[in-house]
Amino acid sequence: MRELVHIGAAPSFLMEAHDALSAAIAQKAGFKGLWASGLSISSSLGYRDANEASWTDLVNVVERMADATSIPILVDADSGFGNFNNARIAARKLHRHGAHGVCVEDKGFPKMNSFVGDRHPLAEVGEFCGRLKAIKDTISDPEFVLVARIEALIAGHGQEEALTRAHAYADAGADAILIHSRKSNPDEIFAFTRAWQNRLPVVIVPTKYYRTPVAEYCAAGIATVIWANHNMRAAIAAMRDVCGRIMRDGAIAGVEGDVATLEELFDLMNYDELAAAEERYLPHAGNGHR
Amino acid sequence: MRELVHIGAAPSFLMEAHDALSAAIAQKAGFKGLWASGLSISSSLGYRDANEASWTDLVNVVERMADATSIPILVDADSGFGNFNNARIAARKLHRHGAHGVCVEDKGFPKMNSFVGDRHPLAEVGEFCGRLKAIKDTISDPEFVLVARIEALIAGHGQEEALTRAHAYADAGADAILIHSRKSNPDEIFAFTRAWQNRLPVVIVPTKYYRTPVAEYCAAGIATVIWANHNMRAAIAAMRDVCGRIMRDGAIAGVEGDVATLEELFDLMNYDELAAAEERYLPHAGNGHR
Amino acid sequence: MRELVHIGAAPSFLMEAHDALSAAIAQKAGFKGLWASGLSISSSLGYRDANEASWTDLVNVVERMADATSIPILVDADSGFGNFNNARIAARKLHRHGAHGVCVEDKGFPKMNSFVGDRHPLAEVGEFCGRLKAIKDTISDPEFVLVARIEALIAGHGQEEALTRAHAYADAGADAILIHSRKSNPDEIFAFTRAWQNRLPVVIVPTKYYRTPVAEYCAAGIATVIWANHNMRAAIAAMRDVCGRIMRDGAIAGVEGDVATLEELFDLMNYDELAAAEERYLPHAGNGHR
Amino acid sequence: MRELVHIGAAPSFLMEAHDALSAAIAQKAGFKGLWASGLSISSSLGYRDANEASWTDLVNVVERMADATSIPILVDADSGFGNFNNARIAARKLHRHGAHGVCVEDKGFPKMNSFVGDRHPLAEVGEFCGRLKAIKDTISDPEFVLVARIEALIAGHGQEEALTRAHAYADAGADAILIHSRKSNPDEIFAFTRAWQNRLPVVIVPTKYYRTPVAEYCAAGIATVIWANHNMRAAIAAMRDVCGRIMRDGAIAGVEGDVATLEELFDLMNYDELAAAEERYLPHAGNGHR
Repeated sequence: MRELVHIGAAPSFLMEAHDALSAAIAQKAGFKGLWASGLSISSSLGYRDANEASWTDLVNVVERMADATSIPILVDADSGFGNFNNARIAARKLHRHGAHGVCVEDKGFPKMNSFVGDRHPLAEVGEFCGRLKAIKDTISDPEFVLVARIEALIAGHGQEEALTRAHAYADAGADAILIHSRKSNPDEIFAFTRAWQNRLPVVIVPTKYYRTPVAEYCAAGIATVIWANHNMRAAIAAMRDVCGRIMRDGAIAGVEGDVATLEELFDLMNYDELAAAEERYLPHAGNGHR
Repeated sequence: MRELVHIGAAPSFLMEAHDALSAAIAQKAGFKGLWASGLSISSSLGYRDANEASWTDLVNVVERMADATSIPILVDADSGFGNFNNARIAARKLHRHGAHGVCVEDKGFPKMNSFVGDRHPLAEVGEFCGRLKAIKDTISDPEFVLVARIEALIAGHGQEEALTRAHAYADAGADAILIHSRKSNPDEIFAFTRAWQNRLPVVIVPTKYYRTPVAEYCAAGIATVIWANHNMRAAIAAMRDVCGRIMRDGAIAGVEGDVATLEELFDLMNYDELAAAEERYLPHAGNGHR
Repeated sequence: MRELVHIGAAPSFLMEAHDALSAAIAQKAGFKGLWASGLSISSSLGYRDANEASWTDLVNVVERMADATSIPILVDADSGFGNFNNARIAARKLHRHGAHGVCVEDKGFPKMNSFVGDRHPLAEVGEFCGRLKAIKDTISDPEFVLVARIEALIAGHGQEEALTRAHAYADAGADAILIHSRKSNPDEIFAFTRAWQNRLPVVIVPTKYYRTPVAEYCAAGIATVIWANHNMRAAIAAMRDVCGRIMRDGAIAGVEGDVATLEELFDLMNYDELAAAEERYLPHAGNGHR
Repeated sequence: MRELVHIGAAPSFLMEAHDALSAAIAQKAGFKGLWASGLSISSSLGYRDANEASWTDLVNVVERMADATSIPILVDADSGFGNFNNARIAARKLHRHGAHGVCVEDKGFPKMNSFVGDRHPLAEVGEFCGRLKAIKDTISDPEFVLVARIEALIAGHGQEEALTRAHAYADAGADAILIHSRKSNPDEIFAFTRAWQNRLPVVIVPTKYYRTPVAEYCAAGIATVIWANHNMRAAIAAMRDVCGRIMRDGAIAGVEGDVATLEELFDLMNYDELAAAEERYLPHAGNGHR
């Protein structure tokens, strides 16, 4: 993960995934790293992005994503699922189960999705730094990346508060800073990066300011860009359309050409390996499946 | 579920779902029942459709699908996860966790997906009837539906074997018969229904013979048609396309119009209920999220 | 559960259990209800009683206890695992998975065990009442019991605070009040009951004031007495002793007479039912296990 | 684990554990390794030792045992939970979640406890060797130990069959042989070891022939002795007794001296670490628990 969150000539990209299948698809498309989105995973599990899913629910999903891929996964660990102790326990388990980094945001528990509602209270700086320190002290793997996510801009506290927090989080041991915004342009992001001067790598999530060209991120020295929920949103649109068409037609003939073939699925899930293993490990191959 | 698996003027339709989100989408599109597909759920979990996922993995997914919807769910319970004892334990748990019926197929453990490989060995009839009886004796809920799935045609054993098995499974207590085929036309399905004469309702899965018009199913007296994996396949195609485009563009601006909005997601997951509940249950609403 | 938490001539007793085995043993001993202790279950899972285990970990344990028994289970739900929303989600799941009641205490998240440390901050009354109301509104089962646990005495806030809270919790919909103390005598408990006058049934946990005779509880009108951790503590003492002896002897001959026989275990877990089921459901019983 | 399963002057001992608590107790007593018993873990979960619990249930328990201890754990993986593919998936997950070795027995799926019933069918040798090879090929960790358990003596097939199987399993890559017996004396075990001549280390489970002195195991060159269920059986006896006494007395005063103190539990679970961490990571320690 560390090579995906560093300051270089151009940003790295992390693609959202929410289950093993979406993770495998993103890897196959060429992405070098994954974002295990709290919003997307919650949605897949039927929960709202307000810590309705338990932290062990999240660990289970991340493990399956890791099992299905070979690229690093940065996990959206919300606000750490409680205090420093919950945060370090969850981080340790996530690391054990295949995460290559966690991102923790400076809000309380339970959190609410940053795009929903207003006036989300921020965590007290010292208390949040305790969460960061506890995670750092728990995980000795030097490749593991701890991203501190700052919600100050979204909460309306302004640049100064954001910078103060960024420096405190850097002092507490964060490996990178995620500065979040829900404006439709990146002005406040770039104001932050100008002042921050890349003391630590900067991670951004341009869900709302999606029109900004990547060249501007390069110019601003952004280390990592997260495409935070686009697999999920693509899947929703496609399932909604196909369900609607099948419902209307009372038939599937019309959608057959627009959905993936079973062969594509079998290829994604590596069914050939199973067939080969049956040849190797099952006696009397004639009784096998092929 | 019972009203979706009965002999009437026209078949009922069950739409595949593999997680809470796809289930909610199918319900919103108007489907009256869901098919918790073993293939789709396995894929979502990163496993192949060969009993790689544990039966408790399946139970957990079904529970979340049930929590996210209010329509009946027929669960693809593969071959019952072992012998009669495993089958009845899994069925009891599935029922407890929100399933309205289970479908068990007459193969051994572990099973292999019916569309992969050849010569899948069939279960011995008496042993499989023991699985059916054990499930029936375990679940007293009269609304719960036990579907016996016959793989004889796919395994190449012909109509006579299929009919013999159908009658044995009816005698053992099955509530319906799923006759499966992987031919690209429904001839062997209709040969079966002509001979079977609807002793029990017939369920079909026209994944391979998808071109057949529903009128033919009506004429054949089919009770239930399962669209077995189309949500999954729609999602795969959409995620593969969107990943490819974002990868190529290094940007998301181009896909924004083709993916669901966050508002659509929030609506699907009922975020309004949470906002209203905060008003009701949180004191000092001014500290809340809205 | 309701019949075990009501005001009568003598208190009911709930015995602690922390897994399916301890639950089955308590039922076999004659107890009419169980206490799914947060401390004991946490310990069994290797966690400390500070919300280190996730709420879904707890749900899974309670489900297995319910599967293994036929007596009501009151679940120690700590402070509700977060805010009103977490509390109602957890309560709904616990109910679905076999709990007959939950006990929620007026502390924050994460909580710390009441016998560890001092100055545990109490929840603000209005916010805690929101948790209680949300649980009540979520679970419509009239048999389900919601116990509000008051930590005011342990936190050093005195009788007046305890009573104020008890009345507020009753107004919010609690079905019973658990008044907790860690004094070695029940004086403050009885002071509370005298003032409370059984507006709602009172539940107590005499872990520290264990010498008090039950007659005094009768006289005080106590509804329910929880033996909160004695199965766990008995098991710890026994395992520590047996491990020590086997370690010292390098042999098990010396402990054989002091541990349960396998036959006792097989009887507890109802192996006879499985043997009978094999006779019923497996063809060719000659291939079976007996 | 490898140092606990090797041929030396005296056998190593593995103590049964079935949850994190029993594992911590065994480690504290001085044992150098643990046996994650299928029988004990099943019982703790409320299941019978007939593959009623899913393999993921087992993985979860083993992970918690590993989290709570620092000594190697040999996991009783029954017959591997299906065919070679299920076996290798389960072994990989067990390894990932903290197991240091697995023991797989040459029976089918589902298995039945070796002490229950007769005529358990054995696995076909070639098929079972496929399971062993698949596990070996999956786990590259050289410290991981694969024990092949032979049920031929219990199944009544005699020494020759046991030896033939042992050699086949050694050829297939097993690291050690567990030769099982349910006779009340070790004669058939020693007959096996004389003929086997320690081609691979031998593991035994003297549950039924418990009177044999360890000196005889030394003389026979036994590598490892498993005390297979004595923590569980000690706990059962203690909980049954304490429940009975509390039930009879209607009080806990009488048992207080015979159960572990809360302080012993807090010490086992390392509550001091949490208090120290609160000092370190929580600001304003005055708001903490101590």
